[in-house]
Amino acid sequence: MEDNLSLFYGLSFLTVAIAFAFAVYLYLWVRREKIQNRRIEEIAGLIKEGADTFIRREYKILASFAAVVAVIILILLPQPIWKGGIISNISMALAYIAGTVLSAIAGKIGILVATLSNGRTAESADKSLREAFLLGFRGGAVMGLLVVGCSLLGVTAVLMLTGDTTILLGFSFGASSLALFAKAGGGIFTKTADVAADLTGKVELGIPEDDPRNPAVIADNVGDNVGDVAGMGADLFDSNVAAAASALVIAQSLSGGDLNNISMVFCYSLLGLLSSVIGIATARVGKNGNPTRALNSSTYVTTAIFLVLTAIATAVFEGFSWRIWGASSVGLLVGVIIGITTDYFTDDTKPIVQKVAHASASGPAFTILSGTAYGFISALPAMIGIAVSALVAYKLCQPIGDGYAIFGISMAAVGMLSIVGMIISNDAYGPIVDNARGLAEMGGLGEETIRIADELDSAGNTVKAVTKGFSIGAAGLTVISLLGAFMSEVNAALESAGRPLIEGFDIMSPTVFFGIMIGAAVPAVFSAMLILGVDRNAERMVAEIHRQFNTIEGLREGRVKPDYGRCIDIAASGALRELIPAGLMAILMTLAVGFIGGPESIGGFLLGNIVSGLLLALFMSNSGGLWDNSKKYVEAGAEGGKGSEAHKAAVIGDTVGDPYKDTAGPSINTQITVVSLVSSLSAALFVAFSIF
Amino acid sequence: MEDNLSLFYGLSFLTVAIAFAFAVYLYLWVRREKIQNRRIEEIAGLIKEGADTFIRREYKILASFAAVVAVIILILLPQPIWKGGIISNISMALAYIAGTVLSAIAGKIGILVATLSNGRTAESADKSLREAFLLGFRGGAVMGLLVVGCSLLGVTAVLMLTGDTTILLGFSFGASSLALFAKAGGGIFTKTADVAADLTGKVELGIPEDDPRNPAVIADNVGDNVGDVAGMGADLFDSNVAAAASALVIAQSLSGGDLNNISMVFCYSLLGLLSSVIGIATARVGKNGNPTRALNSSTYVTTAIFLVLTAIATAVFEGFSWRIWGASSVGLLVGVIIGITTDYFTDDTKPIVQKVAHASASGPAFTILSGTAYGFISALPAMIGIAVSALVAYKLCQPIGDGYAIFGISMAAVGMLSIVGMIISNDAYGPIVDNARGLAEMGGLGEETIRIADELDSAGNTVKAVTKGFSIGAAGLTVISLLGAFMSEVNAALESAGRPLIEGFDIMSPTVFFGIMIGAAVPAVFSAMLILGVDRNAERMVAEIHRQFNTIEGLREGRVKPDYGRCIDIAASGALRELIPAGLMAILMTLAVGFIGGPESIGGFLLGNIVSGLLLALFMSNSGGLWDNSKKYVEAGAEGGKGSEAHKAAVIGDTVGDPYKDTAGPSINTQITVVSLVSSLSAALFVAFSIF
Repeated sequence: MEDNLSLFYGLSFLTVAIAFAFAVYLYLWVRREKIQNRRIEEIAGLIKEGADTFIRREYKILASFAAVVAVIILILLPQPIWKGGIISNISMALAYIAGTVLSAIAGKIGILVATLSNGRTAESADKSLREAFLLGFRGGAVMGLLVVGCSLLGVTAVLMLTGDTTILLGFSFGASSLALFAKAGGGIFTKTADVAADLTGKVELGIPEDDPRNPAVIADNVGDNVGDVAGMGADLFDSNVAAAASALVIAQSLSGGDLNNISMVFCYSLLGLLSSVIGIATARVGKNGNPTRALNSSTYVTTAIFLVLTAIATAVFEGFSWRIWGASSVGLLVGVIIGITTDYFTDDTKPIVQKVAHASASGPAFTILSGTAYGFISALPAMIGIAVSALVAYKLCQPIGDGYAIFGISMAAVGMLSIVGMIISNDAYGPIVDNARGLAEMGGLGEETIRIADELDSAGNTVKAVTKGFSIGAAGLTVISLLGAFMSEVNAALESAGRPLIEGFDIMSPTVFFGIMIGAAVPAVFSAMLILGVDRNAERMVAEIHRQFNTIEGLREGRVKPDYGRCIDIAASGALRELIPAGLMAILMTLAVGFIGGPESIGGFLLGNIVSGLLLALFMSNSGGLWDNSKKYVEAGAEGGKGSEAHKAAVIGDTVGDPYKDTAGPSINTQITVVSLVSSLSAALFVAFSIF
Repeated sequence: MEDNLSLFYGLSFLTVAIAFAFAVYLYLWVRREKIQNRRIEEIAGLIKEGADTFIRREYKILASFAAVVAVIILILLPQPIWKGGIISNISMALAYIAGTVLSAIAGKIGILVATLSNGRTAESADKSLREAFLLGFRGGAVMGLLVVGCSLLGVTAVLMLTGDTTILLGFSFGASSLALFAKAGGGIFTKTADVAADLTGKVELGIPEDDPRNPAVIADNVGDNVGDVAGMGADLFDSNVAAAASALVIAQSLSGGDLNNISMVFCYSLLGLLSSVIGIATARVGKNGNPTRALNSSTYVTTAIFLVLTAIATAVFEGFSWRIWGASSVGLLVGVIIGITTDYFTDDTKPIVQKVAHASASGPAFTILSGTAYGFISALPAMIGIAVSALVAYKLCQPIGDGYAIFGISMAAVGMLSIVGMIISNDAYGPIVDNARGLAEMGGLGEETIRIADELDSAGNTVKAVTKGFSIGAAGLTVISLLGAFMSEVNAALESAGRPLIEGFDIMSPTVFFGIMIGAAVPAVFSAMLILGVDRNAERMVAEIHRQFNTIEGLREGRVKPDYGRCIDIAASGALRELIPAGLMAILMTLAVGFIGGPESIGGFLLGNIVSGLLLALFMSNSGGLWDNSKKYVEAGAEGGKGSEAHKAAVIGDTVGDPYKDTAGPSINTQITVVSLVSSLSAALFVAFSIF
């Protein structure tokens, strides 16, 4: 059996090498195209520069943050240094740093390629849809391959070097720390710029979305990259690592650490990456084909390949259980179903978006009320989907033996996340073509080109809803398995302290209930703090835009260029300033509950956090998408079209939805993972030092 | 000990008699005043007529609904009739009917007195603040006394006649059914009218809030009565009965039904009513005093009296435990604290309201975003308060013996609800003075009178925030004890089936988790359905108002009266039509989860429902109050005052907040209770017939 595991370590590295090689090929493929249009080259350069500025600042602050956390880990985790085991502490601190660094590298390169592709996509839209689609898609695919490659590389290396799954949680925590900065910080950045640009541009000045006179326009395009490319990549890196890490922690705790289960986790992860490579390689669109269909069908292809490959592996390798294959397949299929139902609530060819557009005709209050209501309803199918997949995975795997039930749930999460390489490629495609659309407009490429860019952009928006639902679903299953990992950690600590183990977390116990109530409030407060952060930051930027229009002569007429840099500065520094209190709040609440109520309360805390977090994340992502597409639906001519009262109301809905869907909603995932990992890592401390 | 219980039965009836006598006195006191102003008399008559119309329709539909439910109970509950025990089934069906009828009577008389007081309050505002305050307050107090009196009367009578606490759950379910109609139906009615009146009046036509030319104006005033008087009364009747019933169910299950505990529940309940009688009798305001202070101080007086009286009772009666007194006191004090923190988020002299007003200057999107964010944050203190009071009550009472811990939580709920008579009086005061303000305007009573009426009205709004926080907190604790009651019922059913009892509900069990996820989604969907109901209904009424202004000649100039009746009809029939699907959805989801996952899933379902329900209820009530008061704050001159852009934005916020705070938010309480009672009542069925 030991041999089998070495085999999978080797195969993992091989797959990572294939993925990286393919990414390099795609990068070179994108780069070979040269930009002709001076104006586009210049603006694309500004966007690249702005994104680099933000990433540099973010990573600088993150480096200090990570250094402090690494020192704390070194002293306290997995157990206080004065109790011995210094090697473990050093390993964990290093694993933590590796987690941040690998994620950072993936993000940095992803941004590099995305900002390389946007201008090229814009120009080739001048020639053909087919070519432009491939440039956008392959630019995004580099990010997808890097994220999954780096995560598999990290997990394999950490486990091979230390042989200790608890250290993996440290690696995972590193990934989460970065995701918190990248997703929430990037989310605040992008919406600050977007909201401020819309408010001053479209509403006050009546100039088009991507008009170069607007000082916030470059910041807005930068935001697409830092929020949607780097942020989303870091988020899914985080989920992917957390799913693998918790599956491995649970696998190791099973009947004394049966290596078959560990092998199985690696086998499924590497096959997922391989499936994504094939899916990416085969994706293309016909000359006048439909880019939405191309993106979706490549997702389905990847799904099918994964199911087949894992079935073959299960048949070939002795000791791989078909029940676990079943659990993983259920997870993947439910993920796809969640994506499709999300689409129902946010696609403008379906009734919900049209109803909200219709309500807008009665005024903005009705836009908000109906969008909020449908947003709440949209959470139901996904909640049921996650609940059912957990139940089915559990029941499927329970007969294998003690502890396999919860392992089954963690493998459902691994299954759901298996095609994440493909999901990220689709997702990163969005901001690239969104940028391309802006560049086509700013570069004056003519109506037909803008129409093609628009078509590519709209495909990006549609697919985004699906991938978002998918990633929230995956996060849901992952955190359930993190709850299982937490219990393993607590029991390990209790065992070594010679105290009775805990069997579970009983709702009727008031210490558990205490944790549940507070855990449930945390995502609400966290998202509120991010929303207020966007508000405050956008206010600052609006003030700056007003200042520029009032003081820079000739700006209004387009004779002089605005000071784009100031707006980027405001977005970047404000984003990081607003993010830190929210992140600290979540971590401090966890520690407070843990030290007051002990591990029992933390079990409850995590549950409350997961349940209300998922509900709010689904609500915010979906209602935001719904408002965005309602606005587009009205702009396409419904309910009086552009300039009508319905349009004004729909724009207000879209502005409310922006921080919901791109800042608060998706950041909740990261908040849940961070809190889960802090809990698992501090399990031994809570066991030793809690009040109750 | 048996004697002690008889003594408390007797004392309960005596206290009820005192409360009813006092209510009759207050009624006569209000009625002795005669209305002089013809115009006010006429409009007050229209409001009374409209309210009667709605109540009549509501009760008619409710009667058919209750008849169906009573037949189902007769056949199936507490166990299927073919298994014997027909007497129990008949008792439970009768208890159910009694629950609906007693609550209906309290609501009907409450409305009667409220619609009697409003005109009189308006007229006496012409003379003095002191007199007007007393008329408004005492008119509301009749409702408070009736609700608590009827609930104590019903609980005592049912238990005395049947000796079976399970039958009490049937009575409590009756109260919940009515509350569902009264609170959610009334909530839809009132906001339909309010939103439609505001949208057409203030926004489109630019006429003042209570202008008699607006066809919706009478419906709006009727709405205040049916939503805030009858609805809120039914809601607190429901919570009050549920708290007492679950405490009694748990008390009976304790060590073979120690009668001391049952006596203690009655003793505390009747002392609560007595304290409210004293608090109401002593409430008054100085000649130029502050009505807000008068209302709040009467709450504090009642609280203090209750704490002293229960301490004396605990000292006097042998077998009453000080620990339980402690639990009940903690509940009450936490209730008061929750009320005070709620006030912080919704009072316009405090920073939050002012911040939202300031954000409005940047446009309506910022009003919505900041209000939403602060609404989410405002949930935190109350969630912590409920968690802490449950924890403290549990830890206090655990040492008494097995099962006392959860009894302690139920007594904390009884304690929190002890002063509910006073709370309802304060709450019913609100719509009376709100109506009075409208009548003063429509009756042309002059600026000074309107100023006094405004002052009374604003006190009503401030106090409302406190009482709402209080009633959500109370509902929170009540449903925890309902969870305890559910477990008692399940174990009784398991015992009689000869199956092993359940010890609790483990989060890590996937059947429990399955229930949690779905239970958490239900309040979101329920409130969404109510909000959409208000939207649809308001759209219908706006169309009707437009029709009237377009077809009735001379209406715009005030020469002809509008057709008030049509608007009342639309609000009433629409409200009941929109409410039923939402109520059925909640009940059917409960049954589906119960029959799929069995009692374990229902345990999780209730937990998820409670946690997300409390979070959403607090969020919606508080953000709604916040927007309402921000608008008033702007109207008082801040951020440019009336007519400014900030004002327009604040009005949009208020319109969004209306259904949040007066329809969806407070109805969630009722939804939670209904679902909890359906679960407890169906416990035996779930045990017998579930799939897993």
